[in-house]
Amino acid sequence: MFDILFQGGKVVTAEGVFEADVAVTGEKIACIGKIDASAASKVVDVTGKLVLPGAIDAHTHLAMPFGGTVSADDYKAGTRAAVCGGVTTVFDYVMQKKYGDKVDGIMESVEKRMAMCAPVAASDYAFHVAITNLDDGRLLSEFPVAAEAGITSFKCFMVYRRENMMIDDGNILTVLEEAKKAGILVNVHAENCDVIDAKVAQFKREGKLSPWYHYLSRPEFVEEEADRRAIYWAEYTGAPLYIVHLANAGGVEVVREAKARGVKIYAETCPQYLEFTSDVYKREDGRNFVCSPPMKGEASREALWKAISDGFIDTVATDHCPFMQAEKDWGKEDFTKIPNGCAGIENLYPYMLDAAGKGKITYERAVELCATNPARIFGCTRKGAIAVGKDADIVVYDPEKDFTISVANMHSDYDHTIWEGKHLHGYPVQTWLRGKLVYDNGEYVGSYGEGKFVKRAKHL
Amino acid sequence: MFDILFQGGKVVTAEGVFEADVAVTGEKIACIGKIDASAASKVVDVTGKLVLPGAIDAHTHLAMPFGGTVSADDYKAGTRAAVCGGVTTVFDYVMQKKYGDKVDGIMESVEKRMAMCAPVAASDYAFHVAITNLDDGRLLSEFPVAAEAGITSFKCFMVYRRENMMIDDGNILTVLEEAKKAGILVNVHAENCDVIDAKVAQFKREGKLSPWYHYLSRPEFVEEEADRRAIYWAEYTGAPLYIVHLANAGGVEVVREAKARGVKIYAETCPQYLEFTSDVYKREDGRNFVCSPPMKGEASREALWKAISDGFIDTVATDHCPFMQAEKDWGKEDFTKIPNGCAGIENLYPYMLDAAGKGKITYERAVELCATNPARIFGCTRKGAIAVGKDADIVVYDPEKDFTISVANMHSDYDHTIWEGKHLHGYPVQTWLRGKLVYDNGEYVGSYGEGKFVKRAKHL
Amino acid sequence: MFDILFQGGKVVTAEGVFEADVAVTGEKIACIGKIDASAASKVVDVTGKLVLPGAIDAHTHLAMPFGGTVSADDYKAGTRAAVCGGVTTVFDYVMQKKYGDKVDGIMESVEKRMAMCAPVAASDYAFHVAITNLDDGRLLSEFPVAAEAGITSFKCFMVYRRENMMIDDGNILTVLEEAKKAGILVNVHAENCDVIDAKVAQFKREGKLSPWYHYLSRPEFVEEEADRRAIYWAEYTGAPLYIVHLANAGGVEVVREAKARGVKIYAETCPQYLEFTSDVYKREDGRNFVCSPPMKGEASREALWKAISDGFIDTVATDHCPFMQAEKDWGKEDFTKIPNGCAGIENLYPYMLDAAGKGKITYERAVELCATNPARIFGCTRKGAIAVGKDADIVVYDPEKDFTISVANMHSDYDHTIWEGKHLHGYPVQTWLRGKLVYDNGEYVGSYGEGKFVKRAKHL
Amino acid sequence: MFDILFQGGKVVTAEGVFEADVAVTGEKIACIGKIDASAASKVVDVTGKLVLPGAIDAHTHLAMPFGGTVSADDYKAGTRAAVCGGVTTVFDYVMQKKYGDKVDGIMESVEKRMAMCAPVAASDYAFHVAITNLDDGRLLSEFPVAAEAGITSFKCFMVYRRENMMIDDGNILTVLEEAKKAGILVNVHAENCDVIDAKVAQFKREGKLSPWYHYLSRPEFVEEEADRRAIYWAEYTGAPLYIVHLANAGGVEVVREAKARGVKIYAETCPQYLEFTSDVYKREDGRNFVCSPPMKGEASREALWKAISDGFIDTVATDHCPFMQAEKDWGKEDFTKIPNGCAGIENLYPYMLDAAGKGKITYERAVELCATNPARIFGCTRKGAIAVGKDADIVVYDPEKDFTISVANMHSDYDHTIWEGKHLHGYPVQTWLRGKLVYDNGEYVGSYGEGKFVKRAKHL
Repeated sequence: MFDILFQGGKVVTAEGVFEADVAVTGEKIACIGKIDASAASKVVDVTGKLVLPGAIDAHTHLAMPFGGTVSADDYKAGTRAAVCGGVTTVFDYVMQKKYGDKVDGIMESVEKRMAMCAPVAASDYAFHVAITNLDDGRLLSEFPVAAEAGITSFKCFMVYRRENMMIDDGNILTVLEEAKKAGILVNVHAENCDVIDAKVAQFKREGKLSPWYHYLSRPEFVEEEADRRAIYWAEYTGAPLYIVHLANAGGVEVVREAKARGVKIYAETCPQYLEFTSDVYKREDGRNFVCSPPMKGEASREALWKAISDGFIDTVATDHCPFMQAEKDWGKEDFTKIPNGCAGIENLYPYMLDAAGKGKITYERAVELCATNPARIFGCTRKGAIAVGKDADIVVYDPEKDFTISVANMHSDYDHTIWEGKHLHGYPVQTWLRGKLVYDNGEYVGSYGEGKFVKRAKHL
Repeated sequence: MFDILFQGGKVVTAEGVFEADVAVTGEKIACIGKIDASAASKVVDVTGKLVLPGAIDAHTHLAMPFGGTVSADDYKAGTRAAVCGGVTTVFDYVMQKKYGDKVDGIMESVEKRMAMCAPVAASDYAFHVAITNLDDGRLLSEFPVAAEAGITSFKCFMVYRRENMMIDDGNILTVLEEAKKAGILVNVHAENCDVIDAKVAQFKREGKLSPWYHYLSRPEFVEEEADRRAIYWAEYTGAPLYIVHLANAGGVEVVREAKARGVKIYAETCPQYLEFTSDVYKREDGRNFVCSPPMKGEASREALWKAISDGFIDTVATDHCPFMQAEKDWGKEDFTKIPNGCAGIENLYPYMLDAAGKGKITYERAVELCATNPARIFGCTRKGAIAVGKDADIVVYDPEKDFTISVANMHSDYDHTIWEGKHLHGYPVQTWLRGKLVYDNGEYVGSYGEGKFVKRAKHL
Repeated sequence: MFDILFQGGKVVTAEGVFEADVAVTGEKIACIGKIDASAASKVVDVTGKLVLPGAIDAHTHLAMPFGGTVSADDYKAGTRAAVCGGVTTVFDYVMQKKYGDKVDGIMESVEKRMAMCAPVAASDYAFHVAITNLDDGRLLSEFPVAAEAGITSFKCFMVYRRENMMIDDGNILTVLEEAKKAGILVNVHAENCDVIDAKVAQFKREGKLSPWYHYLSRPEFVEEEADRRAIYWAEYTGAPLYIVHLANAGGVEVVREAKARGVKIYAETCPQYLEFTSDVYKREDGRNFVCSPPMKGEASREALWKAISDGFIDTVATDHCPFMQAEKDWGKEDFTKIPNGCAGIENLYPYMLDAAGKGKITYERAVELCATNPARIFGCTRKGAIAVGKDADIVVYDPEKDFTISVANMHSDYDHTIWEGKHLHGYPVQTWLRGKLVYDNGEYVGSYGEGKFVKRAKHL
Repeated sequence: MFDILFQGGKVVTAEGVFEADVAVTGEKIACIGKIDASAASKVVDVTGKLVLPGAIDAHTHLAMPFGGTVSADDYKAGTRAAVCGGVTTVFDYVMQKKYGDKVDGIMESVEKRMAMCAPVAASDYAFHVAITNLDDGRLLSEFPVAAEAGITSFKCFMVYRRENMMIDDGNILTVLEEAKKAGILVNVHAENCDVIDAKVAQFKREGKLSPWYHYLSRPEFVEEEADRRAIYWAEYTGAPLYIVHLANAGGVEVVREAKARGVKIYAETCPQYLEFTSDVYKREDGRNFVCSPPMKGEASREALWKAISDGFIDTVATDHCPFMQAEKDWGKEDFTKIPNGCAGIENLYPYMLDAAGKGKITYERAVELCATNPARIFGCTRKGAIAVGKDADIVVYDPEKDFTISVANMHSDYDHTIWEGKHLHGYPVQTWLRGKLVYDNGEYVGSYGEGKFVKRAKHL
């Protein structure tokens, strides 16, 4: 006797779309196919609906101290918004730090954030750790420890020197070499810090402080150069590399060529780079779109969509890091004072599925980009697919439901969104987390704290 | 009530390996997961076994008139051998021809072969049509007709001018452009005919006639140049292209770069190029290994395996075209008299699965290369995966069974094999074709003629 | 005592422009610098003039049987026109041929043309030999003979199969390999014959016969593919290669990349590809511009100029092959009946020097492209520069003289020119051939037959 | 009447070698060719000798404060050694600096060094200025001033952060953009500082301090990455770029590709990278070979020679920066304490000419690399060739003279040399500086202070 039976829908996997019922036992998917209603304790009628794996947002910053404040969504709000948008696993970035002489350890850093997250998590969650200081190499011995604990991805920032988040090329090389040995995948935020600093200094001298100059201080080539450099290190060390929020056409080109040479790299982009261009920075509310990297030109947007289509981009994630309007307003007269980041966690899956509904990509590809690939790349062995034995993270999606995004119908704590007014055809109607209904037709119906830590496999 | 239940095994798909039972109703897979034995009329215990989709051999030449004779396996023997090796769908090449003034039409050509194949087919089957003469463009109007009839792939030979199989660059371009419009994928045999002819003429003049000179008349660069040219036409026309039996390192390089540029190409290689090198032509029985393209150097073999591993080769097929020993012996003193071709149809899946068992690739990748990808690329929408709704083409594979290939335990009509003595760890124990057992532990147990024509979807 | 002293001018070499007098003794340049008038028997005042080396037109077809007729300029007219345009050395293409069973030898072919040329030559001359038939390899033994005789360049046509001028890839490879051994540089006319034939056949079927379809039957990609192929053979064999009349942007790209890899290739373009685009084929007199390859699009024209500027094109020559208006008119209703070829021999140097005067290139570069490089590449050790010891082939050029090209002021036998009405600022006022004045301010003042055969050094 | 006549020799230019006499009037070359002895006040018999232009060493560090000391050759010794090795123009690097709050201006920096150099200069001299601090952009206004003063080349160090010589990517971009506007060519020392620092820190921790670890802290990839980055900036800004002391194979590759794309870059290498490999660091006197970049592996050495041969390297210069043995010995136990730099200024021309004599390159190419190209690239319009109107900087070279380099027969102030024992066939016997004999058969015979500042043309 199965616990739940999703009956009458169409299942979407990375490989195909087919009519099948899906049965759940406990927290797992038990059976897929023609299944009699009598075989289950409870039947959910999903006639006319798509049955999708829960999405994985591989890039978020919850309760993130940044730009003189903290990002607007804490773990509670962020993970709640996640499941309301069909995301059942959230990756958060832990910032390993140095305070005065004290350098935090990797696990120490994780545990601090774990303690904040576990009691309130509405979705399952995992952590990447941003390595910012190797403490003269002493931190390296913790790499295998982290890997054993299921923390199998790190991050290196090539920017944010002033914020003590940046790590230089020499240390990036060390991290890559040691992470490879430990089975850990390194993520990289690729922009050239020195060039940005020089451009910002110049614009300040020249009194050019509108949001448009945020873009001009980090245009296409600032990102492309860092993409090239990061990939060079990956190729030299043989270590795998995951490029986060790739946003420029030149970088896409470099990724294509490197993959063709057999370099083991993965590329992530974000919905905002697929939807908007740098033109938004000329809008009156341009400051609300300030994030890093910024939206780029139309040629970059098109190059991203092409790579989404032909397979050279691997994942789409959000870089969710919203700030309140009042905080964004700090930079009304000076773009350098705007906290960088935008909302997105609840919009990821609906946005990509809407694109599938409109024929821009297939549903299979949307599922692959938002669920199957992140699971595979980051070692979430029980996640990312509607398949026997996987966690019953299930999204019931109505491909005909119309929806217009507004801050009013989102489930975060922020007070505005760059997605305001975006119309979607098709929307999730239910989200199930390991067999439990947590989102139902507009409402969060789960219990805070039922989200679990996802212990991940090593990257081999 | 299901008709058959495969219980206790591990299912392998392109995406993963998981424990699940597989239920069949009629000719289709009906359900996958935890299924009670009581739910099925018949239970097959596959404990300890892998449950795989039947393989698709996308490249065979059955009853092929060539080199002054006909290939040793007719449709009966060839399809029988196929299912005994886990191949449930065989693609055969139909040669469209001109006889004097009479140019055969495409469908006419297909029907002739269909008439030979249908009554005796032991496996399902599909046809590629090799276009050899456009009859001053008159044949072009048949392209959409063929596509509607489910013949959605053609072939162009860049060699075999004397045999009237070759088609020149001008006509290849026309075929590509018109095939694209019709939803037909063009396959290409890429070697440079003029260079081969010149080399053969030179070796004849010089009295160099051992099998080693077969290799020297078609070494790496002869194939690479044609790969480059074919891909150039594909890129220029925007038409998709499938390169058959890619065997040289330079060609792999070109494929990698073209894919990175977004050119829509697919690459196939064959087990013989993964296993042997040109050294075989120095053996006493070198003539038995004569096929075109010939086995290449070790660097090429390694480049092929690397592309197999990192995804730049899409399929593995056999180019099965065996000849009898007496026929091979025609060329004992003169390599130009050896009919070109080797056996392979029964060895494809076991060979690739053995490589998986040894960790050279994963089982998922073996299934993808031999079943899922050929199905997807060539429009066999009901084939290529263990998934709900697909044809119940199922191979039960024992990963621990030891097997040594010999002409004695093969099921073809040929009398020798290049694979003689090859030891495999792991072997198929049963093959099911659309829910019917056709191979059981060493014996063919099906009925000739139960194989069906696979009408294929257009290539979009 | 010097014989002649050019006093008061500016000397132009590939390396610089500088004020210096030039003294000649016999046929040679004896001294360059500040030289007293009293030191010479005869003083030519060249104040305000540029003193240039005579140009070398490395590509002409004089008295060339083609397209059912013979090109309009025989050796007398062609070499006369040459010196009147500042060209003191003309390279003519000898066509080695087969008549029925009789295959002409290389030296036999040369001698036939030498006999026609020597008695009437107004300029010095050299021959390239177009190899069209290797007579089953028997011709190869003549390669070193030709090299010893100073015939150190051959040509391979990749087109004109019907005209028996084409040689296939297999034989091109053989020619390259053997020419390399003999110290002979191979020239290649790179277009894809099969594609042209297919396009022409198609346009004939469709009744598209205006000159515009000449272009469409040989557009950019037809040439680029052959460029790629020819360069591939050069790279494979390690033999040097000279690409004649390069006219398309893609080919320029390939040349750039190959040179960067260290492939020993040279590229020639022609003034017509620098001046005109395919738009000319839409003109009423479009047929007069029909040559092969045809003029290409504006992007190609720009790519050629860029490579002229930054050094990736080595020479400019004319492919001079004019036909009479009545012959061009054969194709008024059918482009396939137009004899292919245009006039140019008298326009080469003035055209390139006019470009220098306008700042598009430097005078140094004009001299390098039209004189120094052809001399160096083709082994004319005594030609191509104003330098001590070189032949006194000297052009006195007035950079301020205005000139409008017209058939009326040319010195050929043809009756129309594609250059009609082209205005130039700057024009040659005198041409001296080995110390003898042969052209003086509009008039040919030499003696027919004083031109000599240029025995050339091997290409090493 | 000429002042001096070099009679009976062979003149070598970048374009050719020919028999000619060379006459000098005042400081200039007046005439080249067959000149009667009676035409000159003084005749120098150079029968059997080569007459070469004086070389230009475009890269030296004289009296350079570095590594806790000052380089062993001051301007007097350095320029004296220069002319004794056939170098008639020396480029020295001026370091623009900041002292506390005081930022030195560009011209101020130049004048300080000019004051040291002018009174003692034995050769002509020019300055590159290394920009190390833009003083918040205030220095930019001096760029056009420097250009007008004939200082038309700057340098950016991508290394030596601790030494305050490094300038970051943001400022490099600014320098490139503004230098381009001013007609100034930017030189770059390309190595990745962060990686070097990390490697050095690691080796220190590990106690690996022999000279071999100097190489391992700056191996091939450390330089290649910086080459890539620098070229990327050049390509992005469109500014010309000159890469100094290119020493690694990967960098050569990148230079080749960039030149093929039309990027305006120049590459310099040094004799030490052509002669030695990193194996020297395993020698007992390995510390004496410590310079940056270090000698690389054999593959790099070969790649440099290939690019020397086929034209993708433009110049050879020395990076002359010798230290006394006692100073080198500081690092006997710790490579980080070794002052970086080696001797070379007197060995450049003899080394390259010896290579020409041995057929590795031509004499023309040796002259082009060491004289003509540096003159052209750096705007020394009166230097670099034996041509009418150029400065009479003339080297009389005996191609048959045997010479073994030893500190004893050098003319510097240093006390050891990496070239000790190197045998050369061919050696300079005289050097003339603007018509005055300054070196004669082993002895310096000039007057200190007669060297002049070379005011250079802008780089356009």
